Amino acid sequence: MAKKELAVGIDLGGTNTVFGFVDRQGNILAEDRIKTGQYDEIEVFVAALYEKIMIAGKKIGNGCELKGFGIGAPMGNINKGTIEYAAGLPWKGIVPLADIFHNHTDLPVIVTNDANAAAVGEMIFGGAKGMKNFVVITLGTGLGSGFVIDGKLVYGHDGFAGEIGHTAIRPGPSNRDCGCGRKGCLETYVSATGLKRSLLKIMADSIQPSELRKYSFDELDAEIIHDAAKRGDPLALRAFKHTGQMLGFKLADVVAHTDPEAIFLFGGLALAKDLIFEPAKEYMEENLLSIYKGKVKLLESQLSTQNAAVLGASSLIWTEIEK
Amino acid sequence: MAKKELAVGIDLGGTNTVFGFVDRQGNILAEDRIKTGQYDEIEVFVAALYEKIMIAGKKIGNGCELKGFGIGAPMGNINKGTIEYAAGLPWKGIVPLADIFHNHTDLPVIVTNDANAAAVGEMIFGGAKGMKNFVVITLGTGLGSGFVIDGKLVYGHDGFAGEIGHTAIRPGPSNRDCGCGRKGCLETYVSATGLKRSLLKIMADSIQPSELRKYSFDELDAEIIHDAAKRGDPLALRAFKHTGQMLGFKLADVVAHTDPEAIFLFGGLALAKDLIFEPAKEYMEENLLSIYKGKVKLLESQLSTQNAAVLGASSLIWTEIEK
Repeated sequence: MAKKELAVGIDLGGTNTVFGFVDRQGNILAEDRIKTGQYDEIEVFVAALYEKIMIAGKKIGNGCELKGFGIGAPMGNINKGTIEYAAGLPWKGIVPLADIFHNHTDLPVIVTNDANAAAVGEMIFGGAKGMKNFVVITLGTGLGSGFVIDGKLVYGHDGFAGEIGHTAIRPGPSNRDCGCGRKGCLETYVSATGLKRSLLKIMADSIQPSELRKYSFDELDAEIIHDAAKRGDPLALRAFKHTGQMLGFKLADVVAHTDPEAIFLFGGLALAKDLIFEPAKEYMEENLLSIYKGKVKLLESQLSTQNAAVLGASSLIWTEIEK
Repeated sequence: MAKKELAVGIDLGGTNTVFGFVDRQGNILAEDRIKTGQYDEIEVFVAALYEKIMIAGKKIGNGCELKGFGIGAPMGNINKGTIEYAAGLPWKGIVPLADIFHNHTDLPVIVTNDANAAAVGEMIFGGAKGMKNFVVITLGTGLGSGFVIDGKLVYGHDGFAGEIGHTAIRPGPSNRDCGCGRKGCLETYVSATGLKRSLLKIMADSIQPSELRKYSFDELDAEIIHDAAKRGDPLALRAFKHTGQMLGFKLADVVAHTDPEAIFLFGGLALAKDLIFEPAKEYMEENLLSIYKGKVKLLESQLSTQNAAVLGASSLIWTEIEK
């Protein structure tokens, strides 16, 4: 009997790097994670990750054959197998990730940005099955995006398509600093960090009481703000509303580029459901050009937060094999 | 001997509708135009246009066979053969253009937006030959855009991709009214009309003398401002600089969507060359995310203003036939 083919999907994030052994049907046979931030040197990180992957692999039966490693990472470049100038990661400049992986393995190693990987995951295993034109927005520490057009992920000429987290929502020198070195990028408003920054400004302007006034900036995170919002905290509710509005406003612009059938929201902030979706839908519709109004679906990702990027990253290998 | 195959390419604009009989090599064998604005009724317009096309066709020898009509029009929809809510045209709401054409002919009639048609023209006959990923921006009375990804024009799920003229450059209730009913759209700044509007604001704020102070708003057009700029008129120069900067700023955002190899500028304003290209390049580079810096070419269309949309529109027929 032929061995069952598996690919390792790796979701390389600023805090955690999660991986899984995935079959062609999207079943995760083994998974684990390591803390990305603990590794100042990329070679040490890859060695530790590779070891952990091999350990996890031993739990899988012998009837399987590993075909390659797919990696979703911020600023991942599919043409070169690199991560380039990713503000949220410990390693600066251009990181030759695939090359370093190849110190450990001769199997294919494919790198793309994490949101692109999530978009492929959504298309193959999630809510975008059968869709030809859609966008996935990942809402984590930052904001990523992946575009699918005519059934294919858009990589762009240089391998870097889909970085709308770094388009301008409120340009100008007095605006919020972005980790990319510029000002007023979308992700400084619409992301877990953006939510926290908006909350602080609202807190500063308002005299309403709030349970969040007892937290420091460092202590606050999207989950704490979400929990407060669920209890009706007025400042938390306003922070979510503002974040959703900024997102919806920008999505109207995204639609004018490639006219997608649907936009999927994925990641921590998307779990806040109506708190994000309602203001986002309202502002998107309000700002859409009339030819697009009422036509573009704003949907929740149908993959669990943990798995979409891992599934998507693993499926890069099947696409590569079939080339 | 087989007859030479021809397609009629039609560039339907707010002022003029230009058409040509085009062969597969991009040679225009006959051409003419009618005034769009003279026809309040779409049926009368199409009848007059069709008659003019037939007259022009008689000048072509018998060795040719007409294969269809390709039409580039603002808000043209390829899926439905319609023009929908085009602010700059005499006909309101949804105009079933292909259906009305079919009152006169049984040949294929393909409708898409004018910038999409120009993008196809640039790819087949112009400066984008051999490019797989690029964007064409048309700068006329308004601003249109066409995206090519992986060698194919992007139509979008609903047939309306590429309307970045209606993305927000300066959102907010106090901003410039757009013909689409919204505020602060890119084309209210970056277009022949946008240039004129910017000139008026600069003129209002400045006390510098200018030859343009003698013109009314109605009298002014991009050509008059361009001529004044060539003579060194300070207000005309500032108006061009501002227009180019706004364009460059926005192009940095466009790049973050689909990471193109090149962006082509096409149409009247692009003829002002350095007056537009220099500030646009400078602001695009300044605002690009570092992974894109120095990589995206900003180029002049290699097709004459008059012909690109006609050539592109005609080539829609070849694409249709080969389906």
